[in-house]
Amino acid sequence: MKPVKIGLLGLGTVGGGTLEILQKTLPEIQGRLGQSIEVVAIAVRDLNRPRSVDTTGIELTDDPMQVVTHPDVEIVVELMGGTGLARDLLSEAIRLGKHVVTANKALIAEFGNELFALAAENNVIVNYEAAVAGGIPVIKAVREGLAANKIEWLAGIINGTGNYILTEMKKPGADFAAVLKVAQELGYAEADPTFDVEGIDAAHKLTILASIAFGIELQFNKVYTEGISKVTAEDIQFAEKLGYQIKHLGVASRTDNGFSLRVHPTLIPNSVLLANVHGVMNSVLVKGDHVGSTMYYGPGAGAGPTASAVVADIIDVIRWREQPQKARVPALGFVTEALQSAPVVSIEEIETRYYIRCFAQDHAGVLAKITSVMAKHNISIEQVVQEPCKSQPQDATLVMLTNRVKEANLNAALSDLSQLEEIDGEIARIRLESLQ
Amino acid sequence: MKPVKIGLLGLGTVGGGTLEILQKTLPEIQGRLGQSIEVVAIAVRDLNRPRSVDTTGIELTDDPMQVVTHPDVEIVVELMGGTGLARDLLSEAIRLGKHVVTANKALIAEFGNELFALAAENNVIVNYEAAVAGGIPVIKAVREGLAANKIEWLAGIINGTGNYILTEMKKPGADFAAVLKVAQELGYAEADPTFDVEGIDAAHKLTILASIAFGIELQFNKVYTEGISKVTAEDIQFAEKLGYQIKHLGVASRTDNGFSLRVHPTLIPNSVLLANVHGVMNSVLVKGDHVGSTMYYGPGAGAGPTASAVVADIIDVIRWREQPQKARVPALGFVTEALQSAPVVSIEEIETRYYIRCFAQDHAGVLAKITSVMAKHNISIEQVVQEPCKSQPQDATLVMLTNRVKEANLNAALSDLSQLEEIDGEIARIRLESLQ
Repeated sequence: MKPVKIGLLGLGTVGGGTLEILQKTLPEIQGRLGQSIEVVAIAVRDLNRPRSVDTTGIELTDDPMQVVTHPDVEIVVELMGGTGLARDLLSEAIRLGKHVVTANKALIAEFGNELFALAAENNVIVNYEAAVAGGIPVIKAVREGLAANKIEWLAGIINGTGNYILTEMKKPGADFAAVLKVAQELGYAEADPTFDVEGIDAAHKLTILASIAFGIELQFNKVYTEGISKVTAEDIQFAEKLGYQIKHLGVASRTDNGFSLRVHPTLIPNSVLLANVHGVMNSVLVKGDHVGSTMYYGPGAGAGPTASAVVADIIDVIRWREQPQKARVPALGFVTEALQSAPVVSIEEIETRYYIRCFAQDHAGVLAKITSVMAKHNISIEQVVQEPCKSQPQDATLVMLTNRVKEANLNAALSDLSQLEEIDGEIARIRLESLQ
Repeated sequence: MKPVKIGLLGLGTVGGGTLEILQKTLPEIQGRLGQSIEVVAIAVRDLNRPRSVDTTGIELTDDPMQVVTHPDVEIVVELMGGTGLARDLLSEAIRLGKHVVTANKALIAEFGNELFALAAENNVIVNYEAAVAGGIPVIKAVREGLAANKIEWLAGIINGTGNYILTEMKKPGADFAAVLKVAQELGYAEADPTFDVEGIDAAHKLTILASIAFGIELQFNKVYTEGISKVTAEDIQFAEKLGYQIKHLGVASRTDNGFSLRVHPTLIPNSVLLANVHGVMNSVLVKGDHVGSTMYYGPGAGAGPTASAVVADIIDVIRWREQPQKARVPALGFVTEALQSAPVVSIEEIETRYYIRCFAQDHAGVLAKITSVMAKHNISIEQVVQEPCKSQPQDATLVMLTNRVKEANLNAALSDLSQLEEIDGEIARIRLESLQ
């Protein structure tokens, strides 16, 4: 049987990793697939750059459209990133009736609806396992493995950089800025770390996970996104004392008024396995109505893990293209007619528990005053810790965990609290999820 | 489009759960699959038993062959268990050209080779996701999600009863017999607990996992199987002091001489996420050459989780039957011609680290004598703990962790050790895996 011919757009970290797998592990892959795969063309940025991978016998070009239109290329694999040129190239590949595999989370989260519609018209597959949580086959788990369930919610550590930073901040004396600097030196964080630490990368991934879990269109611009730059080492220590870890989570859940899609630092109980996911590792916890909670864990980035997901997608495309379109796994897990249009609720409408930390003057009656403000807004305090404040010696640091309350309600309480003359400086607020 | 018609063999816990999903979550499933599923016939043991599920409009029969030969039934779903009648029924279903879904781990582990060969001849699919780790889609993850990797090893907590017992034995004063009794009262363990506590159930699952990971035929009778009944609460406490948890693991790995397939109690480092999997939960850790380590976690038993996997298999069958056989995921993950015949090595040939616990007379020179026996066999002791022995006041309890050593070598050393007059009673030995 003739090998299936593919073209790569990009030969950077993931492109090189993909080529290496298709060379080194080809016997294993052939054993699984029953046929061979051949890379026939690769688009690179600079033809003269020395390569650590062997490209003998492969057409290299610096014009990516040549790979897309290459008469032998049956599957176009996009590993160049960005949402401009990549979008145009994949749209053209789809129009030419070619199947597509991409690792591009921004492209899928922002332009996936358009690409999937075009793919359906042209009877081709767009696969994107590597776009979420790198090497962990979580797209496959949710779209296929849990297909018998109505997904109630999911919560994931889906940005390795952020999780590395929060993990390192647990070490004595560490603070956000210092840890970020080390992460940059180790190559875990970009020179401009905004995408990772402000949660944009996680929001891209959460957008995709929410769509395949609930059967809703991709709505990246509706995701509430809060980064980790305001989390302090002190917050992490207080959380730990109370039995929690602070993790930067993507959370998608059903509410009475629609779907909640959000990325923010979150206290989660130590007793939950997800709280033990440390360093650069990723993990996604998914709650289905019949299966209960299942969790998927592994490396979320890097050449090998990402390329592992890309090649698994290529294998699926080779299998699925033999099916009529109606029998294939739909791009968003649900057939187009079944996609729901339920709204995404604003962050003010969510209901959860909260960690509140403030600096308050350390004299009698202050705690009573604070709790009475909270009570006025019908917020119960379930745990309180008070300690001498290190940065402001006249103050105590006061930490409270609330009961479940609507965020709008909590905001009103915090606004009243901040008016108290006994409160010094800003009040920190971190959401708390029990994940049960 | 007409619904796909299926027949169930068995309406016990899992059968009832499957019927309930296909009733309660059908709109969600139809949204994913683009078509409906209808249960038309069910074989039950006793037609007169009252049912908690609604069987209106479904043909009930106490002759399971009637379901198999039912002219409308396109997919036969076997949830009755056992390897006698179930084997005959599924063989007949396959001969009639019907696709098959089963949750029966014993049947697949012991007779899968025969069933898969028959299925290939008859161009039908046999799916068995629910046979391993209940609701966790780990068969899908290994056969499809990690298909770009050569799997190096896997290790799993794949028997919830055993993991529950070992977890409960950490509580003060608990011992194996008392915890087993509670597990039986809670319904976590059978009246005859042999299958679970002696590792047979785990060996069935490990057989299947090893085959799809490495591309080898099912070889249940080659699995080394050791249960948990000899693990003491004291061993669990010593392990914890040394930074380890004792888990009942199924381990499959490549060695220089063949594949190692084994089920036994194992010390694993606290720092490994798998060590934090407690209670009745299951989890499988898989090491691939490109992806590195990924882990899959969730409930390994129960009506909802098991039925979730059964229904996901039904959905896959409905999709895959539209493909030519060569494009389908092969039953053991690899096409028949690619299956390897490398041998399974005996337990004496494995190389790993060991936890050794013995009772030794508490006087000067005893430790030196013991370590010199070990040294004679080229075994280094990497950690030692000595404590007063509770059960034998004249003795000390001595615990040692060895370096990596061949099991045959260790056995020789233990045999020599047991000859020392300073050693009282049996020497306990538990394997230790770093899982890196």
